[in-house]
Amino acid sequence: MQKAILIILDGLGDLPDSRGKTPLSGAKTPNMDKLAKAGICGMLSPIGRGNVPGSDTSHLTLLGYPYWESYCGRGPLEALGSGMELRKGDVAFRANFATVENGEIIDRRAGRIETSAAMKLEKYIRDMEIEGCTVMFRSTVEHRGMLVIRGSNLGAEVSDTDPHAKVAVPQSRALKKGSEKTAKILNEFTKRAMAALGKAPENKGRKLPANAVLCRGAGAYCEVEPFAKKNGFSGACIAGGALYKGVARYIGMDVLEVEGATGAKDTNLKNKGKKAAAALKNHDFVFVHVKATDSFSHDGDCGGKRKFIERVDKELIPLLAKTKAGIVLTGDHSTLCASGKHSGHEVPILFCGDGFRKDSVKKFDEFSCMEGGMGHMDGWDLFPVIVNAMGRGKKVGT
Amino acid sequence: MQKAILIILDGLGDLPDSRGKTPLSGAKTPNMDKLAKAGICGMLSPIGRGNVPGSDTSHLTLLGYPYWESYCGRGPLEALGSGMELRKGDVAFRANFATVENGEIIDRRAGRIETSAAMKLEKYIRDMEIEGCTVMFRSTVEHRGMLVIRGSNLGAEVSDTDPHAKVAVPQSRALKKGSEKTAKILNEFTKRAMAALGKAPENKGRKLPANAVLCRGAGAYCEVEPFAKKNGFSGACIAGGALYKGVARYIGMDVLEVEGATGAKDTNLKNKGKKAAAALKNHDFVFVHVKATDSFSHDGDCGGKRKFIERVDKELIPLLAKTKAGIVLTGDHSTLCASGKHSGHEVPILFCGDGFRKDSVKKFDEFSCMEGGMGHMDGWDLFPVIVNAMGRGKKVGT
Repeated sequence: MQKAILIILDGLGDLPDSRGKTPLSGAKTPNMDKLAKAGICGMLSPIGRGNVPGSDTSHLTLLGYPYWESYCGRGPLEALGSGMELRKGDVAFRANFATVENGEIIDRRAGRIETSAAMKLEKYIRDMEIEGCTVMFRSTVEHRGMLVIRGSNLGAEVSDTDPHAKVAVPQSRALKKGSEKTAKILNEFTKRAMAALGKAPENKGRKLPANAVLCRGAGAYCEVEPFAKKNGFSGACIAGGALYKGVARYIGMDVLEVEGATGAKDTNLKNKGKKAAAALKNHDFVFVHVKATDSFSHDGDCGGKRKFIERVDKELIPLLAKTKAGIVLTGDHSTLCASGKHSGHEVPILFCGDGFRKDSVKKFDEFSCMEGGMGHMDGWDLFPVIVNAMGRGKKVGT
Repeated sequence: MQKAILIILDGLGDLPDSRGKTPLSGAKTPNMDKLAKAGICGMLSPIGRGNVPGSDTSHLTLLGYPYWESYCGRGPLEALGSGMELRKGDVAFRANFATVENGEIIDRRAGRIETSAAMKLEKYIRDMEIEGCTVMFRSTVEHRGMLVIRGSNLGAEVSDTDPHAKVAVPQSRALKKGSEKTAKILNEFTKRAMAALGKAPENKGRKLPANAVLCRGAGAYCEVEPFAKKNGFSGACIAGGALYKGVARYIGMDVLEVEGATGAKDTNLKNKGKKAAAALKNHDFVFVHVKATDSFSHDGDCGGKRKFIERVDKELIPLLAKTKAGIVLTGDHSTLCASGKHSGHEVPILFCGDGFRKDSVKKFDEFSCMEGGMGHMDGWDLFPVIVNAMGRGKKVGT
């Protein structure tokens, strides 16, 4: 194999229910099982045994950028994923339109304001100059948006202004020396945003007016060695969710747009599969991300997760399996339906292609893969294993 | 067990062919299988999962000297292996006699000049003084030789003068500050060598005269803690190839000479076995290296590799198995017959002796060992495991 596809089903792993079944082990997945039978399986700890991965740290690590070297906060990754251009040192935040009443946050999503309405409010707070810095707010999907501060002497060690609680909008403060200016600018932005949005005619008549902006996840954008330069081959990303596109843009992969790829439960898996297969023409490595497995887990919907996995098996896997590329299928972490939270439990992983050996595993799930020939892997071992199987590994020594 | 033998079959691991067989899994190896049955198996990643090892970095790591602490380039290891004495700071290169015609390298091996003829040419370029440094050239086997520069302020970060291409002999240049003097001396040596060899009477009448010397693999010799001091017991090395003897000398093992041990396909395995068994009298640890498994792989000769493994099983293993020492059998990396190249695929490993537990593996090959009780090991874990089984481990803490 010269080329490889890495499929990540977000939050794939789970714990067994009272009947001993996880959503994956209970699902009918003949196509995944066929790959498991033809290839070799194992268990993956994306950021090390027992550690609970964020989606950001896990994806960076699995794509060959161990998080402790590459991670600079969620903000910049989401900003890149939403299409914003960042410069080195820019401080980026995830932002929410929220509703404040009598000085208290009564809804931190402003009633999940619809995207088109949020877009109309953007103009009141889109670009500001504060303390000699440029402050840019961009609305993205529903109540969500991004805030970027550009200027000199900005640190990213500031506290959030999104308290996830029904209290007054808190002041941001510097958590480390060097971030005082950032906190000051953020607080001034928050004040001006509340003033501007409070009198916006678009908010008139809204039961939950979008009259405040709450920010979180500050990170200072830094640069990493671009994917193609680092590896000697090109990479493409097929994803719906902004974070995953952002991770891919951050490391210099090509992010391909796919019609109907929403990053949600209604995503068009067939279009993603077709696009991924086509991307192999001009790329040696294709990363395909599927989000909804994680969303069902967060909602505690085991049955929904199981059925969605069956849909992936039916609609996505065959389109990828019939390419000549090597296939690697895994998750970025476990998300437990029982708790609705990410966990540090291992995720099953399978490898299939002529650059891999073969083991005796016949089914792709958390239990069968425990007995797989690849054993227990840490996330930072995954990318070198894929690159080696592609015949692209660089020898250490002679 | 008080003593142990580590047998490394170079480039042992491989990928399955169209019938699902690797050279090892297809070979009849009753003696290895007997050891596997009596002992415990696993899979080894000599320099970490997926990483492609050089023979030098791998051997250092497997012998208890992780490469990132101990590796100072191939040159010094080869020089030591060829019998040269090195001093701290000496810069050593691998060298080739080559043929230059009309200013271009037309054969980088001077028609694989025979050893005796090369030895006669050595005297013209054996010792020089350049820029206040001593420059020593020694002929070794066929077209191969070693160049050592001894003096002050020498760096080893210089480019090769062996371009592996039909071009003019390139000038060496410093790749980092501090290596300028080395590059200058190497270039002057190259010039003087061409002048001297060009008029050597021994070259008259040769179709491919050995009229140039090409150098590569610069390394500055450094010192590591000697094996016996580090471990509290002595080690002996049985090898034919210069690199492996060099690694052993570098770390302070005794290198034993064995009649007929050539490091080639015709090597005398029985003599090596006898010598290794005898070495246990005065040594606690014996390292036995066998090169030809790798050579067959580089030549793409699967059948030859398989048959040679069968010869090792028949001629070498029984002589070692009947000693009372613990036996550890593995490879330093996989070399794929399909590509002729080193790869980062795991190699199977077996441990047998009363210092080891036992698992249910019954055969020594890449597939059976996946299910072994030792699981998946990194190369730097191997030596501590052996030392522990010998009852020689040093307690950390109390």
